[in-house]
Amino acid sequence: MPEAPRQDSSTQPTDEELRALDAHWRAANYLAAGQIYLLANPLLTEPLRPEHIKPRLLGHWGTSPGLNLVHTHLNRVIKNRALDALCIWGPGHGGPSVLANSWLEGSYSETYPDVTRDAQGMELLMRQFSFPGGVPSHVAPEVPGSIHEGGELGYSLAHAYGAALDHPGLLVACVIGDGEAETGPLAGSWHANKFLDPVHDGAVLPILHLNGYKIANPTVLSRIPEPELDALLRGYGHEPIHVSGDDPAAVHRAMAQAMDTALDRIAEAQRAAREEGVTERPHWPVIVLRTPKGWTGPAEVDGEPVEGTWRSHQVPLAGVRDNPDHLRQLEAWLRSYRPEALFDAEGRPVADVLACVPEGGRRLGATPYANGGLLVRDLPIPSLDDFAVPVDKPGTTVHEPTRVLGDLLAQVMRDTADRRDFRLVGPDETASNRLQAVFDASGKAWQAETLDVDEHLDRHGRVMEVLSEHLCQGWLEGYLLTGRHGLFSCYEAFVHIVDSMVNQHIKWLRTSRRLPWRAPIASLNYLLTSHVWRQDHNGFSHQDPGFVDHVLNKSPEVVRVYLPPDANTLLSVADHALRSRDYVNVVVAGKQPCFDWLSMDEARAHCARGAGIWEWAGTEDGSRAPDVVLACAGDVPTQETLAAAHLLRRHLPDLSVRVVNVVDLARLLPREEHPHGMNDFEYDGLFTTDKPVIFAYHGYPWLIHRLAYRRAGHQHLHVRGYKEAGTTTTPFDMVVRNDLDRYRLVMDVIDRVPGLAVRATAVRQRMADARTRHHAWIREHGTDLPEVAEWNWNA
Amino acid sequence: MPEAPRQDSSTQPTDEELRALDAHWRAANYLAAGQIYLLANPLLTEPLRPEHIKPRLLGHWGTSPGLNLVHTHLNRVIKNRALDALCIWGPGHGGPSVLANSWLEGSYSETYPDVTRDAQGMELLMRQFSFPGGVPSHVAPEVPGSIHEGGELGYSLAHAYGAALDHPGLLVACVIGDGEAETGPLAGSWHANKFLDPVHDGAVLPILHLNGYKIANPTVLSRIPEPELDALLRGYGHEPIHVSGDDPAAVHRAMAQAMDTALDRIAEAQRAAREEGVTERPHWPVIVLRTPKGWTGPAEVDGEPVEGTWRSHQVPLAGVRDNPDHLRQLEAWLRSYRPEALFDAEGRPVADVLACVPEGGRRLGATPYANGGLLVRDLPIPSLDDFAVPVDKPGTTVHEPTRVLGDLLAQVMRDTADRRDFRLVGPDETASNRLQAVFDASGKAWQAETLDVDEHLDRHGRVMEVLSEHLCQGWLEGYLLTGRHGLFSCYEAFVHIVDSMVNQHIKWLRTSRRLPWRAPIASLNYLLTSHVWRQDHNGFSHQDPGFVDHVLNKSPEVVRVYLPPDANTLLSVADHALRSRDYVNVVVAGKQPCFDWLSMDEARAHCARGAGIWEWAGTEDGSRAPDVVLACAGDVPTQETLAAAHLLRRHLPDLSVRVVNVVDLARLLPREEHPHGMNDFEYDGLFTTDKPVIFAYHGYPWLIHRLAYRRAGHQHLHVRGYKEAGTTTTPFDMVVRNDLDRYRLVMDVIDRVPGLAVRATAVRQRMADARTRHHAWIREHGTDLPEVAEWNWNA
Repeated sequence: MPEAPRQDSSTQPTDEELRALDAHWRAANYLAAGQIYLLANPLLTEPLRPEHIKPRLLGHWGTSPGLNLVHTHLNRVIKNRALDALCIWGPGHGGPSVLANSWLEGSYSETYPDVTRDAQGMELLMRQFSFPGGVPSHVAPEVPGSIHEGGELGYSLAHAYGAALDHPGLLVACVIGDGEAETGPLAGSWHANKFLDPVHDGAVLPILHLNGYKIANPTVLSRIPEPELDALLRGYGHEPIHVSGDDPAAVHRAMAQAMDTALDRIAEAQRAAREEGVTERPHWPVIVLRTPKGWTGPAEVDGEPVEGTWRSHQVPLAGVRDNPDHLRQLEAWLRSYRPEALFDAEGRPVADVLACVPEGGRRLGATPYANGGLLVRDLPIPSLDDFAVPVDKPGTTVHEPTRVLGDLLAQVMRDTADRRDFRLVGPDETASNRLQAVFDASGKAWQAETLDVDEHLDRHGRVMEVLSEHLCQGWLEGYLLTGRHGLFSCYEAFVHIVDSMVNQHIKWLRTSRRLPWRAPIASLNYLLTSHVWRQDHNGFSHQDPGFVDHVLNKSPEVVRVYLPPDANTLLSVADHALRSRDYVNVVVAGKQPCFDWLSMDEARAHCARGAGIWEWAGTEDGSRAPDVVLACAGDVPTQETLAAAHLLRRHLPDLSVRVVNVVDLARLLPREEHPHGMNDFEYDGLFTTDKPVIFAYHGYPWLIHRLAYRRAGHQHLHVRGYKEAGTTTTPFDMVVRNDLDRYRLVMDVIDRVPGLAVRATAVRQRMADARTRHHAWIREHGTDLPEVAEWNWNA
Repeated sequence: MPEAPRQDSSTQPTDEELRALDAHWRAANYLAAGQIYLLANPLLTEPLRPEHIKPRLLGHWGTSPGLNLVHTHLNRVIKNRALDALCIWGPGHGGPSVLANSWLEGSYSETYPDVTRDAQGMELLMRQFSFPGGVPSHVAPEVPGSIHEGGELGYSLAHAYGAALDHPGLLVACVIGDGEAETGPLAGSWHANKFLDPVHDGAVLPILHLNGYKIANPTVLSRIPEPELDALLRGYGHEPIHVSGDDPAAVHRAMAQAMDTALDRIAEAQRAAREEGVTERPHWPVIVLRTPKGWTGPAEVDGEPVEGTWRSHQVPLAGVRDNPDHLRQLEAWLRSYRPEALFDAEGRPVADVLACVPEGGRRLGATPYANGGLLVRDLPIPSLDDFAVPVDKPGTTVHEPTRVLGDLLAQVMRDTADRRDFRLVGPDETASNRLQAVFDASGKAWQAETLDVDEHLDRHGRVMEVLSEHLCQGWLEGYLLTGRHGLFSCYEAFVHIVDSMVNQHIKWLRTSRRLPWRAPIASLNYLLTSHVWRQDHNGFSHQDPGFVDHVLNKSPEVVRVYLPPDANTLLSVADHALRSRDYVNVVVAGKQPCFDWLSMDEARAHCARGAGIWEWAGTEDGSRAPDVVLACAGDVPTQETLAAAHLLRRHLPDLSVRVVNVVDLARLLPREEHPHGMNDFEYDGLFTTDKPVIFAYHGYPWLIHRLAYRRAGHQHLHVRGYKEAGTTTTPFDMVVRNDLDRYRLVMDVIDRVPGLAVRATAVRQRMADARTRHHAWIREHGTDLPEVAEWNWNA
């Protein structure tokens, strides 16, 4: 049972403490504004001149003072209460603010020793910001203490919950901008508190920052009556604490009290759950902070109000280099923070400024929780042989691959019962995707009401099910980024819902891989099932194999795509994915009964190669090149390809057929385009340079061309796949509609092998007849042809 | 001023009326269950036998009784109050329910005359459901009265608001399942009521249906205490009306009263706004309907509770064909509705069943609002010449293309001021995307608090800004599907947020295009700006050109992609897009100052061709084939290509260079793959079959290969584009980082034109030097080389 954090109904902050907090805040504001404007003269030791100003003024001032206020007050409570804390900065474009705070507390200089905590380092800090070759404008991976870039709004709160799960001693503060609060993903994330276990999970403290404006508009939540906002937050299951104002002294006092109240309540809720076994869902606190946008910046510019309006969103004074009035106004603004009282002559922050700053790994810029690779442990993955299905002869027995994987995942769940560093997330599809064996090892996280009829709900469960792909993705990202492991199982079509989120995660990984101080984290693993070929209940809206295309546009050092054709290959691929680091692994696998093709040993060897010849399936005699290559990737295309090979063996026995199966799609790319890419020697060895290749692919056929267009044999490559011919129908009718069926593949072979068209006219007609028979049968019976339904490789 | 609807604080429903409502509901339940199970014997005129049962049992029973209840009670109020109404069925997988109701009211037989309203038609209705070659299981385009498929959950409420905008006489009911309510997009959509104008817009009546379960889990909103749910809905700005129960008679009575109360309140709010000029935002009603999942279905199956649990989600009795007990149970279940009392001997619904059904176009399955093409009028688009920028010499003047377009859009906005059938939507980026001229014609829709400092907010505005791409997309889809026009302006990277939504809309259009009774609607038009090459403020997270790849995977009859290279081509493309029907048009165009290349007439001609040679830019003399083709698509690549052509003209004057610009990306596809595709003769005429083509493309370079791989000259095609080398930097540094800059393009030419490498060593070195000079300059100054910043075509 994790210990509850120290409760500390602290006394009111003293005036001295408040003065020091204000000094810290002013210093952070000064440094944030300085980053937007200054190339030189960082301490204003001389009057500001145009050459001190950056040639291009870039950055977002508007949110920065609010973020600085939150950072200052988080520092205070972290120090006073000796908390382990992490903060998610939802308005990530307030990068200058988080950078300023990291520099003040010293974590920046520890991470980047050239940016020293003195005048020289301050100049570098300011100069590098949003400067070519410098640091990005957002709370990107380069920023110490960050796990959330914040550029694409909507995911802060989901990340915060993901970080808090299974970290019972951690406080995760989360600043939510009122702009971000309008997004769907954020709006849906509030209900994550129904999944947070007060015993085994840490706490999330949302701080809704109402600064009133987005880029050019007021925000919805800042313009509804306060009682309505209050009802909304209570409806989300929170107890709101309101802090409003524009007088710094008053706001400091109110914010310090609000923080203490919130943390006392959190401590009490955790204590009650952990020590008294209280199971009632706590009404966790939320702080509503209402302060002006661009607070302490220029009140007016060129006669227009700026502070407290949308005009302070980015750069409040745009003409500083050319307009002497703007330059003077900027100097006055910067001097209003009294830098001479905040930094000593060498540019080091004075003691008052640093009074609130905690020590060592408690500093928000130095917490190991924001560098999850420091915390991650290898996952205990059992021997695959204990879960493999026996395969004596290929294509004889059938298994549901995801169900077989479910047994393995259940064991991982069991073996991490004490460590609690593995979670399964999914939009209410764990059982639908046939992974239900995991419920023997862990129930589903649930803190809302439970009825007798419910199954597998568990206050301490580690399977996360909510009907929001956004929340699943956000939870898992937050969980991985703070040093744990997981898997997202999702319907293939609907994983597109998180296209944009996975973009951002891939960008994060690509960048953090290049930062030596960021330790590698566990990969983000997708299991995409209930795929395009088997949407018997749902039809066209549930048919889309394009996620693979989407991720293959992204950084090749991060993305991996696997299409295991049967149960044992799925085990092998999953094993690899769960052990890997810093990747996004996309695994597409069926949940429906599927022939077993490879034994466990064969599967391991095949998956290690990523693509290979299935000698047993072809008719090559080794003395000459094959006449045709039947290639396949994906479970359904593999089955149709094997059935086509079977037909060719029977009807055209002297044709030399090679069968190639591709598990790891990136193998098709040139070596120089992807770390898994084959060199031309390997590729040509598999596919030949001059023989027809009939490639049956799981998804959009042109993807294969996009991967293989540079190969010598590309002009002989003919790909079949999904071409949006979707509907509610039988599995075999789906492949017929998309010309991916066995009969069509045989016809393709006959049409493309030189000379065969004439020799095999009768066989071709027989194939065409079978397709006609299919159409008639299905109209009449609504089921697949018996010869298809009963087919197996050994028939 | 639109008239307010008739208010009718109707008397309590009589017992007779309630009995008739129940008859209608039972009939709908009977038909819904029948569709899932029956192949024959639709009226149960004989005992049920296995051969009456479908071989594959597919469909979703769980939600159907609730949807039937809502439909029945909507019928009642529509009829009593003579309403024009539309219903969005969020749980679209409850297809059998909506089909049943349409058949009952007769709209189904009017749309599909072979499915008659008698026993024979009933058998067909049942048989065709989820049957190969029949109708899909969801509320797909095939279903009369539907504008919302409901397969991918999350968009019902946004669609409802989109449908209600500018339809002052329309009631849009919207059933939201408690599963769907967990999604982010739905959670964010509740705040759409801050954008609904009670004067010019219709009303949205959300009906939150808590049936308690998703696929295998309870739902969050059904398991929080009712006061918490009530606070949540009040926080969303609604006044909740609760209806709960499992006794049909009591629920009918409560539901009838709830509907009357809700509609009275709506009528009163509209009357106050329209007749008294009240501007206070109304607290619109929401009905919370709590009834059992799978209500009236089998209470228990094989000893497990089914009715009222997740076990009734799909097919409650799965073994009917083989298990005599299940068969008996099914028969008892179906007979429990007393079909003999609902249908006459010919299978026609009896009078009682139809008593609540409204007439003609008021029937939910016959409303023209659900077949928006019947209502759509051509948009008044002014002459482009009035907005064109003058171009005497190419590449001399600069304009911001989107700002030029803004003037045109403002005129369209002005010219539709009375018709109110054109809206602009965007996530708070209209001004950022430089379309602010529209504010001279219409303000921004806003019903929340307004302060003096705010600009362009307008209770009756038709520009929609909210920081939710989901809401923007959902609103626009709903607006278009009900017969109006619009444009979505969005940051290029973040349109991926709606990848999945646009998938569904494209699927909808593809299907509805094949239904002769569905009239074409206005296209969904995207203006993607603030694009990958110009994210000076934001950097890597804001850089992603992959939406084009995403849509080009979808049905070619629906998708169109345009990359106008300057202001006048943008006008021409926008004009075409706004006039078109049933497409998804993606227009990618910059907002930053951009050279003007073509006059309006030239732009029109160029856009009509979609791709063409810019003779003035090349050095062909017409006597022989060019030595090299410089191709380009997109504004930034076009500029770099022209600059490269300029360098080649100066440094290698005897090289014969052709410049080809591509506006309409699908032109590159083969004719048989896309209606806009070029035949090989055209393609080869532009690009040659044997000369090097250096193609500078706006997005991921492999997309061009994917489009052109079948062309004869493909092996000579060399594409430059965005390869994820993103960060916060200058515009020219971005192209250098991605090898798309003018110097690199010249080097590519030298490397690829046979014999040139030797002859042009010095020129190549000069180009390499320029890149080195760039790197040094930018490190020092943070700006682009003066020779780049000051370049123009005529220099």
